[in-house]
Amino acid sequence: MSDNGFQDVGLGWLEGSGVHSDIVLSTRVRLARNLQGHAFAARVRDGEREEILDLVRAAVQETALSGGAGYELSATPILGRRLLHERHLISRELAGLAGDTPPLGSGLFMDPQGGVGVMVNEEDHLRLQVILSGLRLHDAFHRVDELDEELGVQLPFAYHQEYGYLTSCPTNVGTGLRASILIHLPGLVLTKEIGKVLQGIGQVGLTFRGLYGEGSEVVGNFFQISNQTTLGKSEEDLVEHLQKIVGRVIQYEMGAREILMRDAPTVIEDKIWRAYGLLRYARSLSFDEVMNLLSGVRLGMSMNLLSGLRVYTLNKLMIFARDAHLEQAAGRPLREAESDLHRAAYVRRVLATEGDVSADAVDAQDDRETS
Amino acid sequence: MSDNGFQDVGLGWLEGSGVHSDIVLSTRVRLARNLQGHAFAARVRDGEREEILDLVRAAVQETALSGGAGYELSATPILGRRLLHERHLISRELAGLAGDTPPLGSGLFMDPQGGVGVMVNEEDHLRLQVILSGLRLHDAFHRVDELDEELGVQLPFAYHQEYGYLTSCPTNVGTGLRASILIHLPGLVLTKEIGKVLQGIGQVGLTFRGLYGEGSEVVGNFFQISNQTTLGKSEEDLVEHLQKIVGRVIQYEMGAREILMRDAPTVIEDKIWRAYGLLRYARSLSFDEVMNLLSGVRLGMSMNLLSGLRVYTLNKLMIFARDAHLEQAAGRPLREAESDLHRAAYVRRVLATEGDVSADAVDAQDDRETS
Repeated sequence: MSDNGFQDVGLGWLEGSGVHSDIVLSTRVRLARNLQGHAFAARVRDGEREEILDLVRAAVQETALSGGAGYELSATPILGRRLLHERHLISRELAGLAGDTPPLGSGLFMDPQGGVGVMVNEEDHLRLQVILSGLRLHDAFHRVDELDEELGVQLPFAYHQEYGYLTSCPTNVGTGLRASILIHLPGLVLTKEIGKVLQGIGQVGLTFRGLYGEGSEVVGNFFQISNQTTLGKSEEDLVEHLQKIVGRVIQYEMGAREILMRDAPTVIEDKIWRAYGLLRYARSLSFDEVMNLLSGVRLGMSMNLLSGLRVYTLNKLMIFARDAHLEQAAGRPLREAESDLHRAAYVRRVLATEGDVSADAVDAQDDRETS
Repeated sequence: MSDNGFQDVGLGWLEGSGVHSDIVLSTRVRLARNLQGHAFAARVRDGEREEILDLVRAAVQETALSGGAGYELSATPILGRRLLHERHLISRELAGLAGDTPPLGSGLFMDPQGGVGVMVNEEDHLRLQVILSGLRLHDAFHRVDELDEELGVQLPFAYHQEYGYLTSCPTNVGTGLRASILIHLPGLVLTKEIGKVLQGIGQVGLTFRGLYGEGSEVVGNFFQISNQTTLGKSEEDLVEHLQKIVGRVIQYEMGAREILMRDAPTVIEDKIWRAYGLLRYARSLSFDEVMNLLSGVRLGMSMNLLSGLRVYTLNKLMIFARDAHLEQAAGRPLREAESDLHRAAYVRRVLATEGDVSADAVDAQDDRETS
């Protein structure tokens, strides 16, 4: 198993390309698959997990993942596992962040570009996943579907004529597909419309979560929206349904932003620029505060109130300002207070080099306000 | 009476010269004088105030004030009176800011450089005053004493062999001298030592007030410290006593800053830089917030945590970011919300041109923090 470091693995989605990439940060589609003849994760016998990992390792060499990165997580240092988790490539459980190191047989394979991968021996034997920048559900499904076909040639996936793909958790039976998008909804939060919108999402079979998956808090107005069930519909239908609803949510968000700019433009501008000023100069920043401030700056960039910043820079800060990434950069463990100092130093260095809002933009702003 | 506009009148003290000008913003000494043969302010008869103003006007032409600015306040537009008040040149009462326009005979004369002046028909017939930058009590007393002698040749000051100069309010009888300094004490506020220090000041015959005189709130950790009584001591003794106590307060403040830097350097640095970031980028700022943020930035500059800023710039912002000064710059009245926008625009324009903290300083800071 090759482990070619962590520098760029799984970070392709940061690029900020794709439709609505200012509002929809990323699209993720995953397929849950299990192997015939092996017990589901909760019931595997000794040595069975390692057998499964060996089977998957051999199989991925025949696919687009060949030549990419591979991690046997039980042998991966804790910092590496934390990095992969912060990049949304492995779950908290698979990373063994709850305290235990991951059991033998836990693995991750990523393609050379890092957008396509397979988690091994998480809740299911295999979880095929694709992460792309922006709103690209069909594209992401197409890619994960290709990988599914390639792997299906190599591996005997457990499949039932009536129910479809069999999975560890009943909610994944059927297509085994979960499609989700990471979306930024500050307008709906500020206009207090978000509750209604999230309720509506629930009524059409979708669900929402915070930035780091189930049970994680919503920070910075970032939401993950995904399908709730996988049974009784085709993959295409599930993806198309999510696409349609996300399209509507984007429309609501745009509407909310228009209302804000109509009713309280100076309040919004002030909020956005204060967030930028704090990111640019603070000496100590918690991760939650960074996310909340980045939310303001992202809104400003998206509404053309603040120029000279790229989506890429804001996306990058969301990952590289996390604890494990700061420790990797520092080359040593950091205590929490230290971490906050390093985070602030990193954020302002990035903004000074990649996000220096031009004086022109500021002056134009001034002229308008004081005219 | 010449009225040569308001552009620079009375702003000499902003220059930021003088001893400890980062901590002691300004020194002010005033002498209360009344004219023999005229009733005190509260009891004047019709026409008497105008007579007094005429007498003073004629007298100042024979002094260092000759050729300076003169304002007959009952004929001065409200904006002009507000400007003079914001510059600490006339009291709120003399400016007629409580609602009524000032009665006939209210006046102000300033020397050409604007540091020396005479208020006419405030609580006393004359209040001679000198405002200088930094801690310069002896210098300020010397100047006001010179003016007193010059005017005393022209005008019959009410004087009693036993009590000294007679004044409208008994607390001013004697020397009629009040010496005060405007001092910035964020260290003592942050270490919560300020209460003890202010209590001590009271015990040695001194008193403290906020930025805009009696009854005004303390904002931005700026305090005015002055002598409480004027009787029974020579002018020199009063000034020397204040000088000695202020010297001690400065020592306490320096001590408090050392403690802060020893116990919580990153908290202090963060506070200072956040204040700078908000001043630099906020789109709406109340005057109180500006004062509080300027307090942080002033502390940072004084402690060499933040370079590239001059005391002059910070002093200027304290005056020109006030409502009347913003209205003068805008050329029209401003509603409160508008005022906050203009204030923010003014502050960031000044900081962008006069207070752009060098990247070098920021990087040096970074290196230290992340090493």
